Amino acid sequence: MNCLEERIVKDGIVKEGNILKVDSFLNHQLDVNLFDQMGKEWAKRFEGIEINKILTIEASGIGIACVVARHFGVPVVFAKKSKSVNLDGEMYTAEVESFTHKNKNLVIVSKKFLNKDDKVLIIDDFLANGCALQGLISIINQAGASVSGIGIAIEKGFQNGGQIIRNMGYRLESLAIVDSMDASTGEIKFRD
Amino acid sequence: MNCLEERIVKDGIVKEGNILKVDSFLNHQLDVNLFDQMGKEWAKRFEGIEINKILTIEASGIGIACVVARHFGVPVVFAKKSKSVNLDGEMYTAEVESFTHKNKNLVIVSKKFLNKDDKVLIIDDFLANGCALQGLISIINQAGASVSGIGIAIEKGFQNGGQIIRNMGYRLESLAIVDSMDASTGEIKFRD
Repeated sequence: MNCLEERIVKDGIVKEGNILKVDSFLNHQLDVNLFDQMGKEWAKRFEGIEINKILTIEASGIGIACVVARHFGVPVVFAKKSKSVNLDGEMYTAEVESFTHKNKNLVIVSKKFLNKDDKVLIIDDFLANGCALQGLISIINQAGASVSGIGIAIEKGFQNGGQIIRNMGYRLESLAIVDSMDASTGEIKFRD
Repeated sequence: MNCLEERIVKDGIVKEGNILKVDSFLNHQLDVNLFDQMGKEWAKRFEGIEINKILTIEASGIGIACVVARHFGVPVVFAKKSKSVNLDGEMYTAEVESFTHKNKNLVIVSKKFLNKDDKVLIIDDFLANGCALQGLISIINQAGASVSGIGIAIEKGFQNGGQIIRNMGYRLESLAIVDSMDASTGEIKFRD
Protein backbone atom coordinates (compact mmCIF):
# COMPACT_ATOMS: atom_id res chain seq x y z
CA MET A 1 0.00 0.00 0.00
CA ASN A 2 1.18 3.53 -0.75
CA CYS A 3 0.93 6.47 1.69
CA LEU A 4 -2.54 7.49 0.52
CA GLU A 5 -4.02 3.97 0.71
CA GLU A 6 -2.57 3.59 4.21
CA ARG A 7 -4.13 6.87 5.26
CA ILE A 8 -7.53 5.93 3.79
CA VAL A 9 -7.47 2.68 5.79
CA LYS A 10 -6.50 4.57 8.95
CA ASP A 11 -8.76 7.64 8.72
CA GLY A 12 -11.28 7.14 5.90
CA ILE A 13 -14.88 6.39 6.87
CA VAL A 14 -17.20 4.32 4.68
CA LYS A 15 -20.82 5.52 4.69
CA GLU A 16 -23.97 4.13 3.12
CA GLY A 17 -24.48 5.15 -0.51
CA ASN A 18 -20.88 4.43 -1.56
CA ILE A 19 -19.61 7.53 0.19
CA LEU A 20 -16.01 7.51 1.38
CA LYS A 21 -15.39 10.31 3.84
CA VAL A 22 -11.80 11.52 3.80
CA ASP A 23 -12.50 14.97 5.14
CA SER A 24 -9.99 14.66 7.99
CA PHE A 25 -7.03 14.73 5.59
CA LEU A 26 -8.05 15.27 1.94
CA ASN A 27 -10.95 17.65 1.39
CA HIS A 28 -11.90 19.69 4.47
CA GLN A 29 -8.94 19.38 6.82
CA LEU A 30 -5.91 19.07 4.53
CA ASP A 31 -2.72 17.16 5.40
CA VAL A 32 -0.17 19.06 3.33
CA ASN A 33 2.62 16.61 4.18
CA LEU A 34 0.53 13.82 2.64
CA PHE A 35 -0.08 16.04 -0.43
CA ASP A 36 3.69 16.48 -0.68
CA GLN A 37 4.22 12.69 -0.67
CA MET A 38 1.50 12.36 -3.32
CA GLY A 39 3.34 14.97 -5.39
CA LYS A 40 6.56 12.95 -5.18
CA GLU A 41 4.71 9.85 -6.34
CA TRP A 42 3.07 11.59 -9.32
CA ALA A 43 6.39 13.23 -10.27
CA LYS A 44 7.86 9.71 -10.45
CA ARG A 45 4.95 8.29 -12.46
CA PHE A 46 4.93 11.18 -14.96
CA GLU A 47 8.71 11.43 -15.24
CA GLY A 48 9.87 12.32 -18.77
CA ILE A 49 6.45 13.59 -19.83
CA GLU A 50 6.27 17.25 -20.84
CA ILE A 51 4.09 19.21 -18.42
CA ASN A 52 4.01 23.01 -18.14
CA LYS A 53 0.75 23.57 -16.27
CA ILE A 54 -1.53 21.85 -13.77
CA LEU A 55 -5.30 22.22 -14.15
CA THR A 56 -7.69 21.43 -11.31
CA ILE A 57 -11.21 22.39 -10.23
CA GLU A 58 -12.42 24.20 -7.15
CA ALA A 59 -12.56 23.62 -4.28
CA SER A 60 -11.04 20.34 -3.07
CA GLY A 61 -8.59 19.99 -5.95
CA ILE A 62 -6.82 23.30 -5.35
CA GLY A 63 -4.81 22.45 -2.24
CA ILE A 64 -3.57 19.14 -3.63
CA ALA A 65 -2.70 20.73 -6.98
CA CYS A 66 -0.73 23.58 -5.39
CA VAL A 67 1.42 21.34 -3.19
CA VAL A 68 1.92 18.87 -6.03
CA ALA A 69 2.84 21.65 -8.50
CA ARG A 70 6.04 22.35 -6.59
CA HIS A 71 7.30 18.90 -7.67
CA PHE A 72 6.73 19.81 -11.32
CA GLY A 73 7.86 23.47 -11.12
CA VAL A 74 4.72 24.68 -12.93
CA PRO A 75 1.79 27.01 -12.16
CA VAL A 76 -1.71 25.82 -11.29
CA VAL A 77 -4.91 26.99 -12.97
CA PHE A 78 -8.19 26.12 -11.31
CA ALA A 79 -11.53 25.94 -13.07
CA LYS A 80 -14.09 28.06 -11.26
CA LYS A 81 -17.59 26.87 -10.53
CA SER A 82 -19.51 30.12 -10.90
CA LYS A 83 -19.13 33.25 -12.95
CA SER A 84 -17.29 35.90 -11.00
CA VAL A 85 -17.59 39.62 -11.68
CA ASN A 86 -13.78 39.68 -11.55
CA LEU A 87 -13.51 37.27 -14.47
CA ASP A 88 -13.94 39.41 -17.52
CA GLY A 89 -12.85 38.61 -21.07
CA GLU A 90 -13.50 35.38 -22.80
CA MET A 91 -13.73 32.06 -21.07
CA TYR A 92 -13.73 28.37 -21.82
CA THR A 93 -16.77 26.72 -20.26
CA ALA A 94 -18.08 23.23 -19.58
CA GLU A 95 -21.11 21.90 -17.75
CA VAL A 96 -20.26 19.50 -14.94
CA GLU A 97 -22.56 17.39 -12.80
CA SER A 98 -21.42 16.83 -9.21
CA PHE A 99 -21.77 13.34 -7.71
CA THR A 100 -21.34 14.74 -4.19
CA HIS A 101 -23.63 17.74 -4.44
CA LYS A 102 -26.18 16.29 -6.91
CA ASN A 103 -26.26 19.45 -8.97
CA LYS A 104 -24.89 20.89 -12.22
CA ASN A 105 -22.26 23.60 -12.37
CA LEU A 106 -20.86 25.65 -15.18
CA VAL A 107 -17.08 25.49 -14.81
CA ILE A 108 -14.99 28.18 -16.42
CA VAL A 109 -11.37 28.94 -17.21
CA SER A 110 -10.21 32.29 -18.55
CA LYS A 111 -8.81 32.00 -22.08
CA LYS A 112 -5.75 33.94 -20.87
CA PHE A 113 -4.52 30.96 -18.89
CA LEU A 114 -4.76 28.06 -21.35
CA ASN A 115 -3.48 28.04 -24.91
CA LYS A 116 -2.46 25.66 -27.68
CA ASP A 117 1.11 25.34 -26.42
CA ASP A 118 0.09 24.07 -22.99
CA LYS A 119 0.89 20.51 -21.92
CA VAL A 120 -1.49 20.01 -19.05
CA LEU A 121 -1.52 17.66 -16.08
CA ILE A 122 -5.00 17.44 -14.56
CA ILE A 123 -5.08 16.90 -10.78
CA ASP A 124 -8.21 16.21 -8.70
CA ASP A 125 -9.17 14.58 -5.42
CA PHE A 126 -11.88 12.14 -6.57
CA LEU A 127 -12.88 10.29 -9.72
CA ALA A 128 -16.29 8.61 -9.68
CA ASN A 129 -18.43 8.93 -12.82
CA GLY A 130 -15.82 11.18 -14.43
CA CYS A 131 -18.04 14.18 -15.15
CA ALA A 132 -15.67 16.77 -13.64
CA LEU A 133 -12.75 15.25 -15.53
CA GLN A 134 -14.65 15.24 -18.83
CA GLY A 135 -15.41 18.93 -18.28
CA LEU A 136 -11.73 19.73 -17.67
CA ILE A 137 -10.68 17.72 -20.75
CA SER A 138 -13.29 19.60 -22.80
CA ILE A 139 -11.82 22.93 -21.62
CA ILE A 140 -8.28 21.79 -22.53
CA ASN A 141 -9.53 20.73 -25.97
CA GLN A 142 -11.31 24.07 -26.48
CA ALA A 143 -7.95 25.77 -25.81
CA GLY A 144 -6.20 23.53 -28.35
CA ALA A 145 -3.87 22.46 -25.53
CA SER A 146 -2.97 18.85 -24.84
CA VAL A 147 -3.56 16.56 -21.87
CA SER A 148 -0.20 15.22 -20.70
CA GLY A 149 -1.78 13.12 -17.99
CA ILE A 150 -4.32 12.89 -15.21
CA GLY A 151 -3.51 12.42 -11.53
CA ILE A 152 -6.39 11.44 -9.25
CA ALA A 153 -6.06 10.89 -5.52
CA ILE A 154 -8.95 8.44 -5.03
CA GLU A 155 -10.70 6.63 -7.88
CA LYS A 156 -13.93 4.80 -7.14
CA GLY A 157 -13.13 1.75 -9.26
CA PHE A 158 -16.69 0.44 -8.99
CA GLN A 159 -17.97 3.47 -10.93
CA ASN A 160 -17.18 3.80 -14.61
CA GLY A 161 -15.37 7.16 -14.79
CA GLY A 162 -11.87 5.69 -14.76
CA GLN A 163 -12.67 3.10 -17.43
CA ILE A 164 -14.15 5.76 -19.75
CA ILE A 165 -11.08 7.97 -19.36
CA ARG A 166 -8.65 5.06 -19.92
CA ASN A 167 -10.69 3.86 -22.93
CA MET A 168 -10.23 7.31 -24.46
CA GLY A 169 -6.48 6.76 -24.26
CA TYR A 170 -5.62 9.21 -21.51
CA ARG A 171 -2.84 8.34 -19.11
CA LEU A 172 -4.65 8.22 -15.77
CA GLU A 173 -2.67 7.69 -12.56
CA SER A 174 -4.95 7.20 -9.55
CA LEU A 175 -3.01 6.82 -6.30
CA ALA A 176 -5.77 4.75 -4.67
CA ILE A 177 -8.38 2.78 -6.63
CA VAL A 178 -11.17 1.57 -4.38
CA ASP A 179 -12.72 -1.54 -5.90
CA SER A 180 -15.25 -2.09 -3.15
CA MET A 181 -16.19 -0.83 0.26
CA ASP A 182 -18.57 -2.02 2.92
CA ALA A 183 -20.35 0.50 5.14
CA SER A 184 -21.33 -2.19 7.67
CA THR A 185 -17.78 -3.41 8.35
CA GLY A 186 -15.83 -0.35 7.17
CA GLU A 187 -13.72 -2.62 4.95
CA ILE A 188 -12.11 -1.05 1.86
CA LYS A 189 -10.61 -3.15 -0.97
CA PHE A 190 -8.01 -1.48 -3.19
CA ARG A 191 -7.07 -2.56 -6.71
CA ASP A 192 -3.51 -3.93 -6.90
CA MET B 1 8.96 46.32 -1.99
CA ASN B 2 8.55 42.66 -1.13
CA CYS B 3 8.02 39.87 -3.68
CA LEU B 4 4.22 40.20 -3.67
CA GLU B 5 4.22 43.99 -4.10
CA GLU B 6 6.69 43.64 -6.97
CA ARG B 7 4.46 41.08 -8.62
CA ILE B 8 1.34 43.23 -8.19
CA VAL B 9 3.13 46.14 -9.90
CA LYS B 10 4.28 43.84 -12.70
CA ASP B 11 1.12 41.78 -13.36
CA GLY B 12 -1.78 43.30 -11.40
CA ILE B 13 -4.42 45.22 -13.38
CA VAL B 14 -6.39 48.07 -11.86
CA LYS B 15 -10.02 48.22 -13.02
CA GLU B 16 -12.80 50.73 -12.41
CA GLY B 17 -14.73 50.14 -9.16
CA ASN B 18 -11.59 49.63 -7.05
CA ILE B 19 -11.02 46.17 -8.49
CA LEU B 20 -7.46 44.87 -8.53
CA LYS B 21 -7.16 41.89 -10.87
CA VAL B 22 -4.40 39.51 -9.80
CA ASP B 23 -5.84 36.45 -11.50
CA SER B 24 -2.64 35.70 -13.44
CA PHE B 25 -0.76 34.72 -10.25
CA LEU B 26 -2.96 34.78 -7.13
CA ASN B 27 -6.53 33.60 -7.62
CA HIS B 28 -7.16 31.87 -10.95
CA GLN B 29 -3.72 30.98 -12.26
CA LEU B 30 -1.61 30.34 -9.17
CA ASP B 31 2.14 30.94 -8.91
CA VAL B 32 3.11 28.40 -6.27
CA ASN B 33 6.70 29.67 -6.11
CA LEU B 34 5.37 33.08 -5.13
CA PHE B 35 3.13 31.40 -2.52
CA ASP B 36 6.24 29.67 -1.16
CA GLN B 37 8.05 33.02 -0.80
CA MET B 38 4.94 34.44 0.92
CA GLY B 39 5.02 31.47 3.30
CA LYS B 40 8.65 32.20 4.19
CA GLU B 41 7.76 35.83 4.92
CA TRP B 42 4.79 34.95 7.16
CA ALA B 43 6.87 32.30 8.96
CA LYS B 44 9.36 35.08 9.80
CA ARG B 45 6.67 37.53 10.90
CA PHE B 46 4.87 34.98 13.10
CA GLU B 47 8.06 33.42 14.51
CA GLY B 48 7.72 32.39 18.15
CA ILE B 49 3.91 32.46 18.06
CA GLU B 50 2.14 29.17 18.77
CA ILE B 51 0.25 27.98 15.68
CA ASN B 52 -1.06 24.45 15.19
CA LYS B 53 -3.58 24.95 12.37
CA ILE B 54 -4.24 27.23 9.42
CA LEU B 55 -7.83 28.23 8.62
CA THR B 56 -8.82 29.65 5.24
CA ILE B 57 -11.95 29.93 3.09
CA GLU B 58 -12.71 28.48 -0.30
CA ALA B 59 -11.77 28.90 -3.03
CA SER B 60 -8.90 31.38 -3.54
CA GLY B 61 -7.47 31.02 -0.04
CA ILE B 62 -6.89 27.27 -0.27
CA GLY B 63 -3.87 27.19 -2.57
CA ILE B 64 -2.02 29.92 -0.69
CA ALA B 65 -2.83 28.31 2.67
CA CYS B 66 -1.61 24.86 1.58
CA VAL B 67 1.75 26.07 0.26
CA VAL B 68 2.20 28.36 3.28
CA ALA B 69 1.28 25.58 5.74
CA ARG B 70 4.46 23.69 4.84
CA HIS B 71 6.46 26.53 6.44
CA PHE B 72 4.53 26.07 9.70
CA GLY B 73 4.30 22.26 9.64
CA VAL B 74 0.56 22.34 10.34
CA PRO B 75 -2.62 21.14 8.60
CA VAL B 76 -5.05 23.45 6.78
CA VAL B 77 -8.80 23.57 7.35
CA PHE B 78 -10.89 25.44 4.82
CA ALA B 79 -14.32 26.88 5.50
CA LYS B 80 -16.80 25.70 2.88
CA LYS B 81 -19.25 28.00 1.20
CA SER B 82 -22.18 25.63 0.76
CA LYS B 83 -23.56 22.69 2.65
CA SER B 84 -22.28 19.45 1.20
CA VAL B 85 -24.06 16.13 1.57
CA ASN B 86 -20.67 14.73 2.61
CA LEU B 87 -20.46 17.06 5.59
CA ASP B 88 -22.53 15.38 8.25
CA GLY B 89 -22.39 15.98 11.97
CA GLU B 90 -22.36 19.31 13.65
CA MET B 91 -20.84 22.38 12.11
CA TYR B 92 -19.78 25.87 13.02
CA THR B 93 -21.42 28.40 10.73
CA ALA B 94 -21.14 32.09 9.87
CA GLU B 95 -22.81 34.28 7.28
CA VAL B 96 -20.36 36.07 5.01
CA GLU B 97 -21.02 38.73 2.40
CA SER B 98 -18.75 38.66 -0.66
CA PHE B 99 -17.38 41.96 -1.97
CA THR B 100 -16.43 40.31 -5.28
CA HIS B 101 -19.58 38.33 -5.92
CA LYS B 102 -22.07 40.72 -4.23
CA ASN B 103 -23.88 37.89 -2.47
CA LYS B 104 -24.15 36.23 0.95
CA ASN B 105 -22.82 32.79 1.73
CA LEU B 106 -23.14 30.53 4.70
CA VAL B 107 -19.62 29.35 5.50
CA ILE B 108 -19.20 26.18 7.53
CA VAL B 109 -16.48 24.24 9.33
CA SER B 110 -17.04 20.79 10.76
CA LYS B 111 -16.76 20.76 14.57
CA LYS B 112 -14.37 17.83 14.23
CA PHE B 113 -11.62 20.05 12.88
CA LEU B 114 -11.56 22.98 15.31
CA ASN B 115 -11.50 22.75 19.09
CA LYS B 116 -10.60 24.76 22.17
CA ASP B 117 -6.94 23.74 22.06
CA ASP B 118 -6.36 25.08 18.55
CA LYS B 119 -4.08 28.08 17.98
CA VAL B 120 -5.16 29.22 14.56
CA LEU B 121 -3.45 31.26 11.86
CA ILE B 122 -6.00 32.61 9.36
CA ILE B 123 -4.74 32.94 5.78
CA ASP B 124 -6.65 34.56 2.91
CA ASP B 125 -5.93 36.24 -0.41
CA PHE B 126 -7.81 39.55 0.01
CA LEU B 127 -9.00 41.79 2.81
CA ALA B 128 -11.43 44.55 1.84
CA ASN B 129 -14.38 45.18 4.16
CA GLY B 130 -13.35 42.25 6.36
CA CYS B 131 -16.60 40.27 6.20
CA ALA B 132 -14.95 36.95 5.33
CA LEU B 133 -12.39 37.45 8.09
CA GLN B 134 -15.07 38.30 10.65
CA GLY B 135 -16.88 35.08 9.70
CA LEU B 136 -13.72 33.02 10.19
CA ILE B 137 -13.01 34.70 13.55
CA SER B 138 -16.59 33.96 14.60
CA ILE B 139 -16.10 30.28 13.72
CA ILE B 140 -12.84 30.15 15.72
CA ASN B 141 -14.61 31.76 18.69
CA GLN B 142 -17.51 29.29 18.43
CA ALA B 143 -14.94 26.50 18.72
CA GLY B 144 -13.36 28.09 21.80
CA ALA B 145 -10.07 28.13 19.86
CA SER B 146 -7.79 31.15 19.69
CA VAL B 147 -6.63 33.33 16.81
CA SER B 148 -2.81 33.34 16.79
CA GLY B 149 -2.66 35.71 13.85
CA ILE B 150 -3.99 36.65 10.45
CA GLY B 151 -1.99 36.61 7.22
CA ILE B 152 -3.50 38.41 4.24
CA ALA B 153 -1.90 38.61 0.82
CA ILE B 154 -3.46 41.88 -0.37
CA GLU B 155 -5.22 44.34 1.93
CA LYS B 156 -7.23 47.15 0.34
CA GLY B 157 -6.08 49.82 2.77
CA PHE B 158 -8.69 52.28 1.51
CA GLN B 159 -11.49 50.02 2.81
CA ASN B 160 -12.01 49.65 6.53
CA GLY B 161 -11.64 45.87 7.07
CA GLY B 162 -8.01 46.01 8.18
CA GLN B 163 -8.61 48.86 10.62
CA ILE B 164 -11.56 47.03 12.22
CA ILE B 165 -9.51 43.86 12.65
CA ARG B 166 -6.49 45.75 14.11
CA ASN B 167 -8.78 47.74 16.43
CA MET B 168 -10.06 44.45 17.82
CA GLY B 169 -6.47 43.63 18.79
CA TYR B 170 -5.73 40.91 16.27
CA ARG B 171 -2.24 40.59 14.86
CA LEU B 172 -2.81 41.17 11.15
CA GLU B 173 0.11 40.79 8.73
CA SER B 174 -0.83 41.89 5.20
CA LEU B 175 1.99 41.38 2.73
CA ALA B 176 0.77 44.18 0.45
CA ILE B 177 -1.44 47.04 1.64
CA VAL B 178 -2.82 49.03 -1.27
CA ASP B 179 -3.56 52.59 -0.10
CA SER B 180 -4.79 53.82 -3.45
CA MET B 181 -5.02 52.78 -7.07
CA ASP B 182 -5.92 54.59 -10.24
CA ALA B 183 -7.73 52.75 -13.02
CA SER B 184 -6.89 55.45 -15.59
CA THR B 185 -3.09 55.31 -15.07
CA GLY B 186 -2.79 51.83 -13.56
CA GLU B 187 -0.79 53.31 -10.67
CA ILE B 188 -0.86 51.47 -7.33
CA LYS B 189 0.36 53.05 -4.07
CA PHE B 190 1.40 50.71 -1.27
CA ARG B 191 1.56 51.58 2.41
CA ASP B 192 5.14 51.65 3.75
